[in-house]
This record gives sequence, structure tokens and C-alpha cells, in this order.
Amino acid sequence: MIPGEKFPVMEIFGPTIQGEGAMAGKRCHFVRFGGCDYRCSWCDSMHAVTPELIKLNAQWLLPHQIVERLEYISILGGRSQWVTLSGGNPGMWDLTSVVEELKKAQWKIAVETQGSERRDWLEHCDLITVSPKGPSSGMHHRFNMRALGEWLTMQDKSSSRLRQVVFKVVIFNQEDLAFAREIRLTYPFVPFYLSVGTPLEFDTEKGLRHYICEGYKNLSEMALKDDAFSDVTILPQLHVLAWGQEKGR
Amino acid sequence: MIPGEKFPVMEIFGPTIQGEGAMAGKRCHFVRFGGCDYRCSWCDSMHAVTPELIKLNAQWLLPHQIVERLEYISILGGRSQWVTLSGGNPGMWDLTSVVEELKKAQWKIAVETQGSERRDWLEHCDLITVSPKGPSSGMHHRFNMRALGEWLTMQDKSSSRLRQVVFKVVIFNQEDLAFAREIRLTYPFVPFYLSVGTPLEFDTEKGLRHYICEGYKNLSEMALKDDAFSDVTILPQLHVLAWGQEKGR
Repeated sequence: MIPGEKFPVMEIFGPTIQGEGAMAGKRCHFVRFGGCDYRCSWCDSMHAVTPELIKLNAQWLLPHQIVERLEYISILGGRSQWVTLSGGNPGMWDLTSVVEELKKAQWKIAVETQGSERRDWLEHCDLITVSPKGPSSGMHHRFNMRALGEWLTMQDKSSSRLRQVVFKVVIFNQEDLAFAREIRLTYPFVPFYLSVGTPLEFDTEKGLRHYICEGYKNLSEMALKDDAFSDVTILPQLHVLAWGQEKGR
Repeated sequence: MIPGEKFPVMEIFGPTIQGEGAMAGKRCHFVRFGGCDYRCSWCDSMHAVTPELIKLNAQWLLPHQIVERLEYISILGGRSQWVTLSGGNPGMWDLTSVVEELKKAQWKIAVETQGSERRDWLEHCDLITVSPKGPSSGMHHRFNMRALGEWLTMQDKSSSRLRQVVFKVVIFNQEDLAFAREIRLTYPFVPFYLSVGTPLEFDTEKGLRHYICEGYKNLSEMALKDDAFSDVTILPQLHVLAWGQEKGR
């Protein structure tokens, strides 16, 4: 870490509902960092990925400024126990100092990353959601099963603190499900979430909610037929069901 | 328990997705018992509540027959780790022998009950969801805060086994939310789920999915404003989003 280093923050928002994974339905705040080493075809956060947009819109903030903004919007809108560091890929950055400041201010820290970078500061976070990208993303060739396994060394069940690694795979089609299956069978003891993909374009007549619910039905029916998924959790994106693709939710 | 005692089973089904509470999104099987001491205005399982319907449709099964049916449909459709005992109110019955048989057959047991009866066999279940009924149910006068607290003695964190009590409150309106709030503030350390109420009747033009998603949005926005709910989980009924009000889902 470079003292006084600033980080490109695209959004700080909350309180809202975490829509996915192990904390689905729980109140949390979000800090979205700019920058990603992937370019997923269905990315819903391209404003935090495209370098031109980051250059244009990022606020470069010091760690204590990030915490101050969180505290400020908590006074306005209500406090959460949890803050989720998202992106882009927050693993692009050395967030050691940000995590330190957040911990001092009593935030529980969740992180969402696709798993390409494994950083020391992650050891101090409470929940790490690693979401390998399947064939539909176009980033499949970057996947490395062994590297994914290395995340599990952060799982520390003997500690009284929850510091857990979970896997989440977004599913758009059969190929994604086969991809998820391979991961599930390789690491069967890791909490595993199948998340229905939300398309960037859809049949507007019936609406996005209908589309997602159909997708949830189809994914559930497919996964229920396969005993590899007998102990996984299957979820739609709850924040999209509530608020659509509104930014800052 | 009377040896050879039979129990009124309305449905045995699965594998499907648990739509609510602590296991929302997880695969499970269900056994629905007939009989309930409540008559909630919005009950979605009246076929397991109305005495005439129970008399007409219940299959009276021995414990080992219940397990055999579960095993049989697992061979057909896939096995779950979990079986949920639901109703009606399964607390109406002494299910000691059923729980014993299920345990022998390696099922993890979840129970859904409104909390009017506390039975010894519950000690041997893995997850107990107690769902007090708020004002919209018309059963509010039956609620007893102290009796609710007695369920918590079943929480055994020192055991390696998960045997957990969680609270789930169905929310249709502001009064229900105030009711939930009181419970939350009285027992702040119990995992707590707010569940969007699914109406028996709704605007058919936009459809049930739309209705539930709007309800989820509204409930989330209300609950996010109230710090009493800062660490609860807010969920829609996922099985209804997927399959509507189909029986056997």
C-alpha cells in the first residue's frame, strides 16, 4: 500500500438489499470500485469496467473518505451491519488501507470478485464471494480450477469470526450449468450459489420480472434433476426483481 | 407416541425448492400434515387445514410408510438432503416416531410451525422455523411473546449439529410489520426472516409474479427505513415466483 493512495470509486450506496448469494435479502451498503480485468458479455456494471467511463466518472477517494461517505449515507438512510466491496473487480486494487478503515468503523465486509486476483487484504474480510464466469460470459478461457481452490485456504472454521468463501455462478444456459457442475463436484464442501442470469435485453412486453421468474423456474427445474446440485442454493437476483436495473440498487 | 400410530398426510412431494426462510433456494422434499389450530385469513394450504378436506383427502400413514414414500419419489426425481415437515401445523401431532424414522434414513429435518405447540420431538429436528401470525391473519390474538421465547431453548450452538430456531413473519401490511418489529426487538439475536405475503386474490392482468415483486419492493423499502430490521433477511416466496400457487411445489 502506498500511504495516501486513492482508489477509483464509481458508486457508494445504501442501505439496500443484497440481491444475491449468501446474504441475499440482507440489508447492506455497497462500494463499487472501477476497473476489471474481464469483459463479460452480460456485465451489468460496465460503468465500472470501461476505462473511458472510469476515467470520466470515478471519484478518486482516500480510504478514510470512503468510510466517511458510508457513515454519511448511513445517517441519512439507515445503517447496515455489512458493506459489500464490489466492482468491476475489487481484486484489481490493494485495498488493505480501505479494509483497515472499514474495520475500525465496525463494518462487516463482504467482497464480490470473479477470482482472478487473490489479495492479502481479503484475509481480513468476513465473506468472500468468488464468482467464476461461465461460457456465456465469453471469459471462460480465463477460468482455472486450481486457482479457484486456492481461495479456500481463506476459510477458517475454527475462528469465531465468520470468514467464509462461497462460490456463485451466474447461469444463462446449459453450458454455464455444466461449468458450474464441474466446480461443484471439484469443491463439494464450499457453499455454492447458482444465480439466474439477468439479460441486458429482454422481451419488454412481459417485462424483466417475468423474464427472471421464468429463468428461475427453468434453472430450478434443470438443477433439481441433477444430484450434483442437491445441496446448492438457487436464487434469482432479488434487487432486480424489486427495482429492475436501476443504478445504485 | 402410540405404537403403530398413523398420521394424516396431505402431500409428500419433492424434490423442489424451499421458497422461504433460512433455506430459501435450497432443494428439499416436503411432508405436509393435515390439521391446524389456526385459521389464517390468507392461508395458502387450506386443503391441510379444513377438517372436511382432511377427512376427505388425507392418507393416514405409518412413520415407515412416510419415509418409504420419500425414498420412492427420491429415486424417481432426485434426492434432497432436507425434508421439511409442514402443514397445517405439524405441531398438532406427536411426530416422535416419524422423526426417528427420518433420522434413521439420514434426512435432515426442517419444521415449519406457527408456534402454538412445543413438542419434545422438535429437539431432534435440525431447523425449526417458527412463524408467528400477525394482524392480517386474524390470528393475532393468539400470539404470546413469552411462549415464543421458549422456543429459543432449543437453540444449541455448542453442538456440532445445526439445530436452530429461526423466526419468520409474513407481511401483508404496516400492522404486520409493527408486529414483526416487536418480536425482532424482543429477541434480537434470533435469525429473523420477513416474508412478503402472497395474496389469495390479485390483479390478474399484471399477474402474481408482478404483484409479489411489487410487494417485495415495498416491504424492502419500508424495512430499510427501520433500524430494528438492520440485520434481518427479507425475501419473497421463491417457489411462487417460479411456479405460482401450484399444489405440490
